Amino acid sequence: MVKVVVNGIGTIGKRVAEAVNKQDDMELYGLSEVSAGQGLITLLSPEGELHGTDLYASNDKGLEQLQEDGMHVEGLLEDQMDEVDIVVDATPPGVDEMNKENLYEPHDVKAIFQGGAADDIAEVKFNADANYEKARGEDFVKVVSCNTTSLSRTMSAVDEAFGVNEAVASLVRRAGDIPQDGRGPVNSTIPVTEVPSHHGPDVQAVMPELDIKTLAVKVPVTYGHVHMVNAELEEELSEEDVLEAFENQPRVNLIEADEGFDSTGKVHEQMRDLGRKRADMQEAGVWKETVTVDDRTVYWIHMVHQESIVVPENVDAIRSMFDMEGKEASIAETNKSMEIM
Amino acid sequence: MVKVVVNGIGTIGKRVAEAVNKQDDMELYGLSEVSAGQGLITLLSPEGELHGTDLYASNDKGLEQLQEDGMHVEGLLEDQMDEVDIVVDATPPGVDEMNKENLYEPHDVKAIFQGGAADDIAEVKFNADANYEKARGEDFVKVVSCNTTSLSRTMSAVDEAFGVNEAVASLVRRAGDIPQDGRGPVNSTIPVTEVPSHHGPDVQAVMPELDIKTLAVKVPVTYGHVHMVNAELEEELSEEDVLEAFENQPRVNLIEADEGFDSTGKVHEQMRDLGRKRADMQEAGVWKETVTVDDRTVYWIHMVHQESIVVPENVDAIRSMFDMEGKEASIAETNKSMEIM
Amino acid sequence: MVKVVVNGIGTIGKRVAEAVNKQDDMELYGLSEVSAGQGLITLLSPEGELHGTDLYASNDKGLEQLQEDGMHVEGLLEDQMDEVDIVVDATPPGVDEMNKENLYEPHDVKAIFQGGAADDIAEVKFNADANYEKARGEDFVKVVSCNTTSLSRTMSAVDEAFGVNEAVASLVRRAGDIPQDGRGPVNSTIPVTEVPSHHGPDVQAVMPELDIKTLAVKVPVTYGHVHMVNAELEEELSEEDVLEAFENQPRVNLIEADEGFDSTGKVHEQMRDLGRKRADMQEAGVWKETVTVDDRTVYWIHMVHQESIVVPENVDAIRSMFDMEGKEASIAETNKSMEIM
Amino acid sequence: MVKVVVNGIGTIGKRVAEAVNKQDDMELYGLSEVSAGQGLITLLSPEGELHGTDLYASNDKGLEQLQEDGMHVEGLLEDQMDEVDIVVDATPPGVDEMNKENLYEPHDVKAIFQGGAADDIAEVKFNADANYEKARGEDFVKVVSCNTTSLSRTMSAVDEAFGVNEAVASLVRRAGDIPQDGRGPVNSTIPVTEVPSHHGPDVQAVMPELDIKTLAVKVPVTYGHVHMVNAELEEELSEEDVLEAFENQPRVNLIEADEGFDSTGKVHEQMRDLGRKRADMQEAGVWKETVTVDDRTVYWIHMVHQESIVVPENVDAIRSMFDMEGKEASIAETNKSMEIM
Repeated sequence: MVKVVVNGIGTIGKRVAEAVNKQDDMELYGLSEVSAGQGLITLLSPEGELHGTDLYASNDKGLEQLQEDGMHVEGLLEDQMDEVDIVVDATPPGVDEMNKENLYEPHDVKAIFQGGAADDIAEVKFNADANYEKARGEDFVKVVSCNTTSLSRTMSAVDEAFGVNEAVASLVRRAGDIPQDGRGPVNSTIPVTEVPSHHGPDVQAVMPELDIKTLAVKVPVTYGHVHMVNAELEEELSEEDVLEAFENQPRVNLIEADEGFDSTGKVHEQMRDLGRKRADMQEAGVWKETVTVDDRTVYWIHMVHQESIVVPENVDAIRSMFDMEGKEASIAETNKSMEIM
Repeated sequence: MVKVVVNGIGTIGKRVAEAVNKQDDMELYGLSEVSAGQGLITLLSPEGELHGTDLYASNDKGLEQLQEDGMHVEGLLEDQMDEVDIVVDATPPGVDEMNKENLYEPHDVKAIFQGGAADDIAEVKFNADANYEKARGEDFVKVVSCNTTSLSRTMSAVDEAFGVNEAVASLVRRAGDIPQDGRGPVNSTIPVTEVPSHHGPDVQAVMPELDIKTLAVKVPVTYGHVHMVNAELEEELSEEDVLEAFENQPRVNLIEADEGFDSTGKVHEQMRDLGRKRADMQEAGVWKETVTVDDRTVYWIHMVHQESIVVPENVDAIRSMFDMEGKEASIAETNKSMEIM
Repeated sequence: MVKVVVNGIGTIGKRVAEAVNKQDDMELYGLSEVSAGQGLITLLSPEGELHGTDLYASNDKGLEQLQEDGMHVEGLLEDQMDEVDIVVDATPPGVDEMNKENLYEPHDVKAIFQGGAADDIAEVKFNADANYEKARGEDFVKVVSCNTTSLSRTMSAVDEAFGVNEAVASLVRRAGDIPQDGRGPVNSTIPVTEVPSHHGPDVQAVMPELDIKTLAVKVPVTYGHVHMVNAELEEELSEEDVLEAFENQPRVNLIEADEGFDSTGKVHEQMRDLGRKRADMQEAGVWKETVTVDDRTVYWIHMVHQESIVVPENVDAIRSMFDMEGKEASIAETNKSMEIM
Repeated sequence: MVKVVVNGIGTIGKRVAEAVNKQDDMELYGLSEVSAGQGLITLLSPEGELHGTDLYASNDKGLEQLQEDGMHVEGLLEDQMDEVDIVVDATPPGVDEMNKENLYEPHDVKAIFQGGAADDIAEVKFNADANYEKARGEDFVKVVSCNTTSLSRTMSAVDEAFGVNEAVASLVRRAGDIPQDGRGPVNSTIPVTEVPSHHGPDVQAVMPELDIKTLAVKVPVTYGHVHMVNAELEEELSEEDVLEAFENQPRVNLIEADEGFDSTGKVHEQMRDLGRKRADMQEAGVWKETVTVDDRTVYWIHMVHQESIVVPENVDAIRSMFDMEGKEASIAETNKSMEIM
């Protein structure tokens, strides 16, 4: 079985570790960190989902710090590199590059990086729906960010079905995650002045043929980005066609405002009622009523749970990099294990 | 086994139903409603925690509506009253009174009402820590509200240990629950102009000897009320004494800001990491660093998860009303089943 | 001089009354209401900007209510209709229609309605920049809403200069105005599920040739909507060309994020520093850095102060309806009197 | 006439400069800064309230920076010290201390510092209502912070009338000012874990006999702190007595929720309607309905506009330090010039 270490146990790392742990065809070999945040402490505590998983230090200083923080550390990650097949690196930008240079490359260990990483950290940018095959056999892959993942999923669904000539997406981004309460804005909307924003080129990294532009603002909410999208298609089609394309996308959910899910807060509540851990929503959620076709243009609004949407992509990337499964099989397996609808 | 129906499957009802379902010494006989909200639909769906539980209609019109909403309904609640031992009524204020008059009293079925109910709906107001014994054998009991429950728990801990002469609590209330996004305020603080607010007398309903006054404001957050409390004690004591009293309280948690839990958002995140359903926190959370003693006065700040704190109290009230267990045993059992720390 | 009554002294009415009062070529004959809100009371108080202005009641019941509210009322508006040349009606939707039928039409008095009014209340929809001439001599005119006004101003600037083929605008709307704190959402983003939203057709009411579609969401802020816009032009052009077109628009301001105005909150602060009453911003504010040209497509992000942007339009509409001035002269006069930059 | 320089043109400095400029018995000699923020630029622009006022640089580096920022600078503040009688220092904590040591003390120039300054920067802490006389003839005075000012005003009113034995205030603080949108929290309440918080001792710095304790939390709003207060009095009294005491306090306003001012947002709107610059409210606002007496204890809730409440105190401090006027006369003069009600 492929042995996986998750390095960097923050918002994404803790979720990827739990997801890897649920797969039958891979083993969560261990976690790696440089200090003990609350997520890590809780995960490894007797009440924690990953109680019993080995913890390593990413470097010497980290070893000291973790011990000072009262954690039981097995040793340095470096000393395990012969045993490990792949590292999912969810460390902060900059740290990931040093890890690549100092740890993964010298020891010939594959690695997956996250959306915040520098663009040149890996040649292949990855989204399971859009370009699963691209990661096959690769040593280094970058899973694209939450906003980009949602756009790649929805766009690839429409593109495969009808062909997209060009698209524009307007992103309404959350201020920070639930615990990031040092961040604003309070009662203010902040435009991203870089127009088009970087999200467009990011989507093009996984869908090179797509002409897509993005604009973005930041607003005072903590759960979910919302995107307003329009795409010009190569052929005429009906709303039913588009809805069908979304329904066939295994990580896109159609949300019905008429059924009471008329806001991100209401969708958040559904995830709570479903008992999803952390009320996560790994699916991109397209509001069904907003899918509208006018001539050859299609419009829709979708939401993105910024903390969890990329987690299944990391699992699929592992399978592709080790040639373990084809696209559909891997997505289906990951979805099943994570109870993605 | 005591057969329990939960009538009214909203914020509190859905949680109480799940909690009752987890007890070994009671049976969740069924749910009752007049229409199908999303919580109910999700709970009874194949993915839902209560899939398979019988659903009844609280009245004829409700029967029609539920069927129109596509729900499978077993029939009218009224027709089950001979089989049922107790109804936990979590319907809106006013409806609960009609239910009492038309359903519970005529059929001689016990009932528990919630904090929003009229004060005279039940003679006994209930908080497990403060007055468990009071509900013994009673037919009708009102579990006090979320704010009152947290004050009763913390005050009874201190009162039992040192005696409280008088106390003042300043309540900073959340705007609405996560899905209640029709409600404000956005960027505004709203004073409750009734001073002292009703929360003080509500606490006195379970702790009649206590002289406590409360003031309150409402602010733009969705997860958790926060209370700033000061209490004058009958005897001098140390901070360690008070901390010990809180530690011994089975539904009070000490939160350490120094460990990273320095806001309601950070505490919310811990509940997510722990995998608590809906990220609920049934415990009152006292920030350890805020517990301060000055002469015979003690100060502290605690938080209250408004949606879930009263849930274990409903379970304990059932046990007390049927004389099933003593206070400590019931609290311990409820806590264990709900993984309350 | 044209004698103007403002009927309905709420968010828009109170501002229009003050604006009319500042014009040399019209007279604020009086205000009309059915009850005394705080804005009205303050305006007419000794400290108020409109102290001394006559107050009328819009109907018999309103007369009673106003007197009960302690206001000095001159009598019924109806009895003044022979003296009055035009009523700016800023009453709630529905009331405005009754006023038209019962008061303005029978007495042959012109009237201006606001963006919330029914579409068929007036044949001519008005925006000073886009179609000033259309209102000439008209009896009934509807000034389009705040969102529509900002789109009409910016679009007409670009359209006149380069011709717009088609455009899409994504609207990020404020939750409520500063005092509307009963409204949510708190911590939630609400999609407008009607896609395209009504704002597109509203713009087309003043710019019939323009192919524009809009999408919208609502977020927890109180000062300012923000729009993300893209428009395909008939000819190629440079960013400088577009900036010049905006600079020449007398009610569009270029905001420089680099100078510190990188959010709606910072722009709000500038209006405060400028001493604008209520920190109003009657200009549409385009963030300069966001104006970007890619082939024949232009992108930009602008903000709209929802409470005040339509106020100068009401003044200009009066001038057009009475054939008092040409477009440029009227705009210049209104701007000067209101210190619009 | 006393010649005043305001050093540090931020939130407080810009307001103090405008206030000094409105006094008949003092002269705004100039402003001093080290760089050009938007407030300064706007104030000195042709549209600005202080257009024409001389600008100095607080140090050599500041001179360079201001010139680089395109400002017209008269020279170094240091070179004007012989001409200047007093500097109101509103620079950041730490900078103020260096200014005292390097500029004010060596040149024997009086100075006023703000609430954020170190406690030992000046022996005398100042609040006009509570201890106007204390600043008489002093060289260095610290005007206490916004929260402390509001507590000093209300407490001194009650204390003078009835004698306060002990008091507790629970502070619900705003997240940041309107333009401070980098700051959180979004959707979170943050307890100040230092209990009692520093505000109590700060009040005691101006009312040494008062036994007052404070607790505090921070919430997501931008306009106004809110305090919930209770005070035990030396003698029994009626609500009318307390209201009268507040009415007689020249910088306390009674706000009536029943009249529509039932939130900080509604009060903010009133300040806008009144045409107050920046919608400032220099008065402490006590909600009338919340003033409640129970035996010898009085309760109330008041709000504090954090940006402006200390501004009139700075003006009065100048008068006291130069022995220009007695307490009542100075307060009356400042109030009149600033249209404080």
